[in-house]
Amino acid sequence: MVRSPVQNAQLALLLEVCGTPKPGNVDRHRDLPGLRFEHFLSGAVGALPGLRSATDGMVGVGTAFERAVAGMATQRGGNTQFGALLLVIPLLRASGQADGDALERSAVESVIDGTTVADAAAFYRAFDHVDVFVDDPPAGASPLDVRRGSEAIPALEERGLTFAEVLAMGVPGDDVAREWTTGFERSFRAASLLAGSSGSVESRTSKTFCQLLADRPDTLVAKKHGEAVATEVSNRAASILEGESEGFEHVEAAIEAFADDLVAREINPGTTADITAAGLFIALEREAIAV
Amino acid sequence: MVRSPVQNAQLALLLEVCGTPKPGNVDRHRDLPGLRFEHFLSGAVGALPGLRSATDGMVGVGTAFERAVAGMATQRGGNTQFGALLLVIPLLRASGQADGDALERSAVESVIDGTTVADAAAFYRAFDHVDVFVDDPPAGASPLDVRRGSEAIPALEERGLTFAEVLAMGVPGDDVAREWTTGFERSFRAASLLAGSSGSVESRTSKTFCQLLADRPDTLVAKKHGEAVATEVSNRAASILEGESEGFEHVEAAIEAFADDLVAREINPGTTADITAAGLFIALEREAIAV
Repeated sequence: MVRSPVQNAQLALLLEVCGTPKPGNVDRHRDLPGLRFEHFLSGAVGALPGLRSATDGMVGVGTAFERAVAGMATQRGGNTQFGALLLVIPLLRASGQADGDALERSAVESVIDGTTVADAAAFYRAFDHVDVFVDDPPAGASPLDVRRGSEAIPALEERGLTFAEVLAMGVPGDDVAREWTTGFERSFRAASLLAGSSGSVESRTSKTFCQLLADRPDTLVAKKHGEAVATEVSNRAASILEGESEGFEHVEAAIEAFADDLVAREINPGTTADITAAGLFIALEREAIAV
Repeated sequence: MVRSPVQNAQLALLLEVCGTPKPGNVDRHRDLPGLRFEHFLSGAVGALPGLRSATDGMVGVGTAFERAVAGMATQRGGNTQFGALLLVIPLLRASGQADGDALERSAVESVIDGTTVADAAAFYRAFDHVDVFVDDPPAGASPLDVRRGSEAIPALEERGLTFAEVLAMGVPGDDVAREWTTGFERSFRAASLLAGSSGSVESRTSKTFCQLLADRPDTLVAKKHGEAVATEVSNRAASILEGESEGFEHVEAAIEAFADDLVAREINPGTTADITAAGLFIALEREAIAV
């Protein structure tokens, strides 16, 4: 038996939260106040009907996303996988259309290009189901503030914006949105990092997360704590990884200490975790990693 | 949105392995040699088509079980949830038939009573998909040795044994099989223990597992290490729980030490974990616990 794309999407969500250490985030060995490991398990189970909708061809990408979020929110931890689903759902749709071919960036770009105003409306409805931490909208865009949820839909429809166009408004402040405008550049990089590292998937996920964090400041950290903190966190990740020549155990201990420190400071690089989940899905679909 | 019975079954499998400490078993904080936490996550995802088959009414309980096992085995750790599925699948079928009513022992008894020879044949085929640790069959029953897998089906059909009758042959040596003959007595007890304890589901699961282990020697431990070791392990669990008057933290530390000791001695009370998973499913279906 082979896992279906829907099963790979669900497994990607589970493996992401299992990966440890994943500094600042819930992982196999760490909870955050009010947000526990078990909430993520439940979120991945709840998302299932939405994941299925993404491949059955009956509804748009936006509705599939809204269903996945509504199901994900059927747990008491709040927002566990909103950002991860915003990446995984279009990738899943692309994978369903790839029809046996390897999942490529061009396929997901074509899904993004095909999104509609109706998809965008469903995206806004998704915010009715769960509290998501987002920045203030750009000047002049407050009628389109996603925090208004479905109340913003008339303004959205008046301007005729597609799901892709709405997400493009979030760039450069939000690196999940940025994936939609770059052909999922960092998600595919994450998949390559996962494939190229060694050990259990749990350990590969940790290394990939740290490398992504070292590559680029986390936009959720920047929104919550400012650019300076986001840059400091990424620099620290980079300097730990530069120490790899001193041996794997040395690096592992440094990452564990880094993880404890970020949890204590309530700094969680959630965007980096979202991109890691997307990378896990791509790597599973390409059979580049195996559990 | 409310989780479906299929989603609750999958969540039960995930919450079971998440529960920590769960002495001697893979849990959120412990792996076993060659059998890691991520294999259980993948097993719960892989089981999904079989779980769905248990409720769609198109196939028998035996075929649903075989599908769940075939999907569960789509990971590299080997047998992760064979015993748990042998309990959860009939409970899931019963829940689908309960049609909004609370899941009761009578409902699952009626599912067990309704099993057929064809269901039993599918049960034997399930052994083709994964290695399961089982005892030698009773005297005169070697043509029906489950380890023969589908090769035993002609002998089975000749004797005309149903799924329920085959499992009854496993009593008293196997306490998963025993559930089938007692109206799932200990699975429903596990659900009550889960509902009656406090804290996160992860912690309730740990306490329930320890209480079940204290109640009765684990039959997988007895099969692998002998009755004396199984009794010693259960006595130790009981004496730790008796210390509860000395305070929760004292007990928690004792259980952690117990868990490390059992892992070191390669003693894994897997039957007790299977019954815990069944209890989690019942408790989720009855909304007696929430994540």
